[in-house]
Amino acid sequence: MSNTKETPQLKTGKGGWVHYRPEIKLLDCTIRDGGLINDHKFDDKLVKNVFDTCVAAGVDYIEFGYKGSKKIFAQNKFGSWKFCDEDDLKRIIGKKPAKTKIAVMADADRTDYHEDILPKDKSMIDCVRVACYIHQIPLAMDMIKDAHDKGYETLLQLMAISNINEHDLVEALEIAAKCPAAGVYIVDSFGSLYSEQVRDLTKIFLRVLDGTGKDVGFHAHNNQQLAFSNTLEALITGANRLDATINGIGRGAGNCPLELLIGFLHNPKFKIRPVLECCRDVFAPLSKQMDWGYSIPYALTGQMNQHPRAAIKMRASDKPDDYVGFYDQLMQEES
Amino acid sequence: MSNTKETPQLKTGKGGWVHYRPEIKLLDCTIRDGGLINDHKFDDKLVKNVFDTCVAAGVDYIEFGYKGSKKIFAQNKFGSWKFCDEDDLKRIIGKKPAKTKIAVMADADRTDYHEDILPKDKSMIDCVRVACYIHQIPLAMDMIKDAHDKGYETLLQLMAISNINEHDLVEALEIAAKCPAAGVYIVDSFGSLYSEQVRDLTKIFLRVLDGTGKDVGFHAHNNQQLAFSNTLEALITGANRLDATINGIGRGAGNCPLELLIGFLHNPKFKIRPVLECCRDVFAPLSKQMDWGYSIPYALTGQMNQHPRAAIKMRASDKPDDYVGFYDQLMQEES
Repeated sequence: MSNTKETPQLKTGKGGWVHYRPEIKLLDCTIRDGGLINDHKFDDKLVKNVFDTCVAAGVDYIEFGYKGSKKIFAQNKFGSWKFCDEDDLKRIIGKKPAKTKIAVMADADRTDYHEDILPKDKSMIDCVRVACYIHQIPLAMDMIKDAHDKGYETLLQLMAISNINEHDLVEALEIAAKCPAAGVYIVDSFGSLYSEQVRDLTKIFLRVLDGTGKDVGFHAHNNQQLAFSNTLEALITGANRLDATINGIGRGAGNCPLELLIGFLHNPKFKIRPVLECCRDVFAPLSKQMDWGYSIPYALTGQMNQHPRAAIKMRASDKPDDYVGFYDQLMQEES
Repeated sequence: MSNTKETPQLKTGKGGWVHYRPEIKLLDCTIRDGGLINDHKFDDKLVKNVFDTCVAAGVDYIEFGYKGSKKIFAQNKFGSWKFCDEDDLKRIIGKKPAKTKIAVMADADRTDYHEDILPKDKSMIDCVRVACYIHQIPLAMDMIKDAHDKGYETLLQLMAISNINEHDLVEALEIAAKCPAAGVYIVDSFGSLYSEQVRDLTKIFLRVLDGTGKDVGFHAHNNQQLAFSNTLEALITGANRLDATINGIGRGAGNCPLELLIGFLHNPKFKIRPVLECCRDVFAPLSKQMDWGYSIPYALTGQMNQHPRAAIKMRASDKPDDYVGFYDQLMQEES
């Protein structure tokens, strides 16, 4: 694997970055993370546009959504991308692209993985990304083994990293080091991390996973307008797998914008123009109907290292700009 | 002066930053930089609210606007804060606050400084911040001497830093090292800098100014959603003077949001609640009438290290979301 010692040094100079790291892999989670805003009810035209955009932009992976349990989640309450059934994937993808891999997320305790993840030769899916909290690591290991044995590339998404102490984190990573996942992601679920924390965490991941061949990945949230910069911090420290979404869409404050990340990565295989087309045609109009992106309530939950759910609720209330009332409420709850 | 070796180390840990640096000085330029959007035509009620907010929040300096030349700028075309006449300052400020200093900006070649900057004992102003491009350094030195001799604290704002090569920069700083300014600011005029460039520049400023007692300052723009993170990068590297604006208001993509910066700085003298009140009462409604903050055209000029004026013009046109047309235009102009 690459780590900070082995990766080629990025060069800075007048006018910006000159060099690029060919091993960097981008995963677009526009439909998956954006789907958390609207219960995964994107129409086919939008999903098809996003898919075509990612292929044209040279993105390495596109993550459509979840393999959600139909026992837990009623199919009439959620859109297709909560379940990513094969027929839905086929309808959008058509002929599989040569270079862009199809990914889905499998949430620990929310996926009937033995049944719902088919053998790879019966699926459009290339890669299963297992998401878990630290107490679910044993379950996640079983999920990864199951998907790996069925023929998939696998990835591990360790959520709520800001609530894990270093001793527990090292133990979790030592377990993950033995699984077949190609990469392990740092997930800043609450958008609470500052740059030096990202650097420290990336170094811990690189150190414990050293010699396993696994990449370190980073998934940001933009609560404090740090999604892009924290993604760069992880990259500079040695992370090779980066998540982004078109126009930064995603639950709450959203994610690292793909158009900013491609602007930074000078690898000629990544193209910004298709992303700008999609922003113009899809996300500029959509942003007038759906609420995502930075706003002060998300900044406050990020500052306090809290789940954004209170901020999401407040933004959807009849007082979306009562920042002081929201701050006072958070302060009262903290005491 | 503080530099990276001497400043106390910031501590990171679960839950965020623990320590703070008491020498950090915040300058709020809400009215000054925000005034670039509306030709400095803020009404008294708004200016008074911002001023009271800064005092209550513990901000060290509030910058009202420019000491613009009345020969160059017609008084009937600009608001009061293009000129910062004493009567206007008195009307807003009333009794001078104990801890918050009053600052104005004097632009090189756009200020009749001999006439319009009064002796300090006849003024509400505490601090004159001289802004210049590198070719105006000799003029800026004369402006700083003039203001210093009249009794003011002075600061130097070196603009368009991303267009200055290192040899010229060191020469400029060696000249600035001899002037009486209390601080010299790095100004990312185009919002084009990435974190490592900010770090490198801050180190150059610290090195050349070492032993002079001058602080290094940082003024960000948010073209690439990096205003806050770059401000933190400068701070962590050793900059002691930081610019911010309430709700990130400012020309184009705006500036580093004061509410994010105060959330990061754990110095108990800074208070976030008054800033949230001002965001609720003033800037949430204002944002529905005025356009500032991140959008893709600003990201593109930032990526290309260009002045935001083309993006500002495009955002005010009848096609504010035609990102592809704008990108193609920039590409054609580049060739």
